Amino acid sequence: MLKAVLEDTSLYQPGLSIDCVIFGFHDNQLKVLLIKTKYSEKWALPGGFVPVDEDIDQAAVTVLNNRTGVKGIFLRQFATFGCAKRNDSDFSSIVLDFYGIPKEKGEWYTNRFVTVGYYALVDFSQIIPQQVGKNETVEWIDHHAVPELILDHKEILDKALETLRMELNLMPVGYNLLPEKFTIPELQRLYETILGKKLDRRNFLRKITAIGILVKLDEKKSNVAHKAPNLYSFDKQKYQEVVKNGLNQGW
Amino acid sequence: MLKAVLEDTSLYQPGLSIDCVIFGFHDNQLKVLLIKTKYSEKWALPGGFVPVDEDIDQAAVTVLNNRTGVKGIFLRQFATFGCAKRNDSDFSSIVLDFYGIPKEKGEWYTNRFVTVGYYALVDFSQIIPQQVGKNETVEWIDHHAVPELILDHKEILDKALETLRMELNLMPVGYNLLPEKFTIPELQRLYETILGKKLDRRNFLRKITAIGILVKLDEKKSNVAHKAPNLYSFDKQKYQEVVKNGLNQGW
Repeated sequence: MLKAVLEDTSLYQPGLSIDCVIFGFHDNQLKVLLIKTKYSEKWALPGGFVPVDEDIDQAAVTVLNNRTGVKGIFLRQFATFGCAKRNDSDFSSIVLDFYGIPKEKGEWYTNRFVTVGYYALVDFSQIIPQQVGKNETVEWIDHHAVPELILDHKEILDKALETLRMELNLMPVGYNLLPEKFTIPELQRLYETILGKKLDRRNFLRKITAIGILVKLDEKKSNVAHKAPNLYSFDKQKYQEVVKNGLNQGW
Repeated sequence: MLKAVLEDTSLYQPGLSIDCVIFGFHDNQLKVLLIKTKYSEKWALPGGFVPVDEDIDQAAVTVLNNRTGVKGIFLRQFATFGCAKRNDSDFSSIVLDFYGIPKEKGEWYTNRFVTVGYYALVDFSQIIPQQVGKNETVEWIDHHAVPELILDHKEILDKALETLRMELNLMPVGYNLLPEKFTIPELQRLYETILGKKLDRRNFLRKITAIGILVKLDEKKSNVAHKAPNLYSFDKQKYQEVVKNGLNQGW
């Protein structure tokens, strides 16, 4: 990617990048998609540059598609990071050295980059992480075990998780992350995993049903010894409405 | 500003700007600070460029300070706007013509700009809008009567208001916008003005007191004929905690 960019920097927006925090949930685990390149010991968020003739949102979609191999994933811009010294580290020089790019030609790359952060939440069991360059490893890493990241990528990751947690108060999650039929305890564990804390069973049941997006099915979970829990599914239309309009539990 | 920037564009981040949506509240009116320059019939949000050695947040603070003349105002980044064609209009050419800047020298300015949006909420009665260039008018305009704006500034303004309304569900507002001692109906009218809708009196009272940021004073409002309402003030420490940690009415 970098080499292609430096061959004709005029095709890319100067000083601007995209970074994607791709959260993966499955079976009560929250992971994040990270990349390790051969030119650094540190891991990084998947990201990219922005073609001058492309919307920034589209550039983010491209990063996500390239990395997950799937399309149509919900992606949300959450913050833009632009400290004066954010890429003032040795990192840029290391990358240029690795590719054998002389400093003066690499100036476009070593100037301050402002980066727009996007996050997505996907079912990691359904996605095979895609290697883009041959000099890199791409992996789902447990969010409790994130290694040292380049630049301010840890700050970007933390802010994305903070935003995701906050947005649980504004909209539902679960669609595409749970099986089509699920139990309330399964849904509760999704919320608990994202929030990183235990929730009271009764309160959760009361709040989640109040949103009005659940359909109680006339089935119970099988393979359960006794007291089989009820199965539910999402009312997709209502779910989409709530995502669009926000939880109406506010003022 | 533009002329100074074009004299040495290398001092500024290329293709990046800041736009500030400065909301002003006073006495049940919500206004927005807008600028009209002599080179266009349309109004604009106050904004600026970002020095290469300055954090984007600092550049936003500078715009806000320059426009309001006051410091220490709460300012929040809410979204970044980067459509491929966002400043592809005649507007840029008009500006260059106005300053007599030849197109080739103005290329830095006519390339696509990505803009980072910030919003602030201030008491407009305490602020005298500051004219920065001599070719402009700067005014508080009622948010219901916003005239046609340049570029995508209307979209930026709408998104800021949407964010402010959403954030009422995440944190309190009122500090710096109401007198030190206020009544619950006054606070309710602040919320109603921002939300653009009437709220139920009992529900509002219940929810706002549940946040735990109000101190009921041992005084009643004077100059009121009968049934004088109680006066309240904010518990500043708790208020700051809730702003920091968010309303704990979530999961």
